[in-house]
Amino acid sequence: MNDKKITKRKEDFSQWYLDVVSKAELSDYGAVKGTMVIRPYGYAIWEIEQQILDKKFKETGVVNAYFPLFIPERLINKEKNHVEGFSPEVAVVTHAGGKKLDEKIVVRPTSETIIYESFSKWVHSYRDLPLLINQWANVVRWELKTKPFIRTTEFLWQEGHTVHETIEGAEERTLQMLNVYKDFSENYMAIPTIIGKKTEAEKFAGALNTYSVEAMMQDGKALQYATSHNLGQNFSKPFDVKYLDKENKEQYGWQTSWGISTRSIGALIMVHSDDKGLVLPPKMAPTQITITTISVKENKKEIFDTTDLIYKKLIEENIRVQTDKRDLTPGEKFFEWERKGIPIRIDIGAEEIKNKEVVFVNRIDGSKTKVSFDQIPTKAKEMLDQIQNNLYQNALKNQEGKIKEVKNWNELVDEVSKGNFVLEYFCCKKDIEKQINEDTGITVRCIKQTDGKTKGICIKTGKETTNEVYFAKSY
Amino acid sequence: MNDKKITKRKEDFSQWYLDVVSKAELSDYGAVKGTMVIRPYGYAIWEIEQQILDKKFKETGVVNAYFPLFIPERLINKEKNHVEGFSPEVAVVTHAGGKKLDEKIVVRPTSETIIYESFSKWVHSYRDLPLLINQWANVVRWELKTKPFIRTTEFLWQEGHTVHETIEGAEERTLQMLNVYKDFSENYMAIPTIIGKKTEAEKFAGALNTYSVEAMMQDGKALQYATSHNLGQNFSKPFDVKYLDKENKEQYGWQTSWGISTRSIGALIMVHSDDKGLVLPPKMAPTQITITTISVKENKKEIFDTTDLIYKKLIEENIRVQTDKRDLTPGEKFFEWERKGIPIRIDIGAEEIKNKEVVFVNRIDGSKTKVSFDQIPTKAKEMLDQIQNNLYQNALKNQEGKIKEVKNWNELVDEVSKGNFVLEYFCCKKDIEKQINEDTGITVRCIKQTDGKTKGICIKTGKETTNEVYFAKSY
Repeated sequence: MNDKKITKRKEDFSQWYLDVVSKAELSDYGAVKGTMVIRPYGYAIWEIEQQILDKKFKETGVVNAYFPLFIPERLINKEKNHVEGFSPEVAVVTHAGGKKLDEKIVVRPTSETIIYESFSKWVHSYRDLPLLINQWANVVRWELKTKPFIRTTEFLWQEGHTVHETIEGAEERTLQMLNVYKDFSENYMAIPTIIGKKTEAEKFAGALNTYSVEAMMQDGKALQYATSHNLGQNFSKPFDVKYLDKENKEQYGWQTSWGISTRSIGALIMVHSDDKGLVLPPKMAPTQITITTISVKENKKEIFDTTDLIYKKLIEENIRVQTDKRDLTPGEKFFEWERKGIPIRIDIGAEEIKNKEVVFVNRIDGSKTKVSFDQIPTKAKEMLDQIQNNLYQNALKNQEGKIKEVKNWNELVDEVSKGNFVLEYFCCKKDIEKQINEDTGITVRCIKQTDGKTKGICIKTGKETTNEVYFAKSY
Repeated sequence: MNDKKITKRKEDFSQWYLDVVSKAELSDYGAVKGTMVIRPYGYAIWEIEQQILDKKFKETGVVNAYFPLFIPERLINKEKNHVEGFSPEVAVVTHAGGKKLDEKIVVRPTSETIIYESFSKWVHSYRDLPLLINQWANVVRWELKTKPFIRTTEFLWQEGHTVHETIEGAEERTLQMLNVYKDFSENYMAIPTIIGKKTEAEKFAGALNTYSVEAMMQDGKALQYATSHNLGQNFSKPFDVKYLDKENKEQYGWQTSWGISTRSIGALIMVHSDDKGLVLPPKMAPTQITITTISVKENKKEIFDTTDLIYKKLIEENIRVQTDKRDLTPGEKFFEWERKGIPIRIDIGAEEIKNKEVVFVNRIDGSKTKVSFDQIPTKAKEMLDQIQNNLYQNALKNQEGKIKEVKNWNELVDEVSKGNFVLEYFCCKKDIEKQINEDTGITVRCIKQTDGKTKGICIKTGKETTNEVYFAKSY
């Protein structure tokens, strides 16, 4: 029933992505345009992401809480840049309980305003700081062009919100969380990242500074999937987040917010998958190994028993493993697990029982390795590590080969249009950047993290600047 | 700052509840009327509940997924009883992205309709069944009278949704999940439960049968905090959830749905807490033990080092423990942990160091036990078990003492108004039950699970019936 072919990346990258998502049963379209159903297999990836990140957040002292979905209009209007940034894309509740509401309610597009209303009640003294809160929640942004995981009207994310005594404390936390995302991306998602400060044109509505985690997709376009904002006192002032310092003087807090969303699953798919379907790095794979019975005839019991035994041994090693004993042809089974990106498939049939060895099939290169029964757990762990590492290296090679330097503006436009990133100096003037984007569709992803002293010549204006930036097309 | 006294239960039970919630910093009011902020301490309880239940669900084969918050009006209108039940309390989005929407969108009050729209696409063959799906999500029901955790406009819950080949399969799953909730209530929340079928008047809008988990609060009122519904084919028909059976004949699926919400935290609070504040059973306590330093003067280092050592030993035993080394008076510290319901407080100061023994303070009876250093982990585990067990026994005693049998209707009204449950035979006629509720405020909580054969005389009508039911006032 799910046997339509997957479009090749070279033919139509966008259609290939939709095919991979659909064939791996990661998501479905919701009934309201632009919404998404996250199917069990896709949601299992999100659960792994939640577990890893939640632990990392808590290790830095963050605790979870939950704030309301509904924001009264008056609250969202309190911070001028913020409301301007978000008002075009909010969903508004006007009726409830059978009546027209006196005040319109906004469905949260992000929760700074509703959370800082609470923070103003919770923060009294320097002793209450730093306040380190996170929530896992759904948010709604009314988008016109949507794509599963990448851009949906409703999405799942976590949003962290902190208050500090000093601007340095806030900046430190902003960078700390940026690095948590970078570590997660590289060491779990096997995605090499580019991190750096956003330009004025691209920063979060209401932030002092925004830092982002960007990655290069296989088509050479950039995908931003995590951000960390130093909000300064832009929200603490209108929201009255104040504390008494050690000298008993009233001060406004310094704040941060930071988030990663189900968009990251889109990146995971677009960085690693191939023309056969989904590819998942083992650390993010809900199932790392499928044990598949093949050519089951008269010795069914022995094959099934051995399958169960291997299953048990792998479970003991904390490997996420499943068995597939269904009465289907080997081809049907192989096809399914390939499309679902299970890192290793172990085949076991009559011949394997006879020779006391199984075949390990590696999803990323299709290689087959014979492994004797007693070596299975050891070899499984080795191969999973190797796949994790190879996926990262492949992605890094792809990315490094596609970050270009150029001589002039025309060359830059040419390279980006060919599916490359360009790393060059840029003045980062807001109006110039906006004009570039309008004329060419090119965006500045972020400013490279440097010592901030080395100067270069702006590729667009010829003026001297310290900002070295990544130009790219983006999702 | 948080030093207002807690109202006594006898004076005003409702105000007592609000005081306990506020003093323990479990929740705050949201900016939109009826919404709730779940503060970190309250949310930590919810996280424990999620972990326990999620594991139990998965052990029965259930997998998680996520479905959209937004339901188009046409979908919610598909099942007649369902829309009638929910339409008075839904919140409606009419505008989004700066435009008036062509079709109104309902913010999910529950997700049967939006989920079964997906199920109709996922279910094709008997091989796809049973389909066992759960989601953890927020839902919105516009309530006029609200109370933290007990009844809020938005709340968090899980909702399980399954499809089966037969009505027996659906009924079995309905009861299986009811028993998961019962087990969780009794063995983790230490709350004795009353479970049974709901009457026609009280069942879920759209269900064939509803079963509920009810518990008695300390004021003798009932609180329902989990339900399990056998939906029959009431939804599969309008939503076209069909499958081909083994004979290749098209059949409608048999469905269930079941859920538990943050309301359960309200029950947890109302069953165990006392006039000093929150009381938590150890299995649900985010912090099971606080080690509190007292009389820290010249031997500060020794006291702090010993505190750290004890902390480490308890962590190794998987006990959730925290230290309180703050420079506050012992009284201030004791007061805070008492209000927050930490099951055991361990005090350590100069004298304790000298005698190589600490004092264990038991939150539920205030008893103090001297424990030598080397006995700390063993005694800690023992006392936690003992507190868990005692809380259950206390609640059971309270409940059993307040379930009355009566001779006639007037006596029943009298007993219930005194804060008791009454267990009597009742005809369960819908109109009679509705009239009782209008006249007296009394509700039928559920029908006792019996062999269904024993007959008795309806306490209201004098007619013979097999339904033995629990009458009570309820939240």
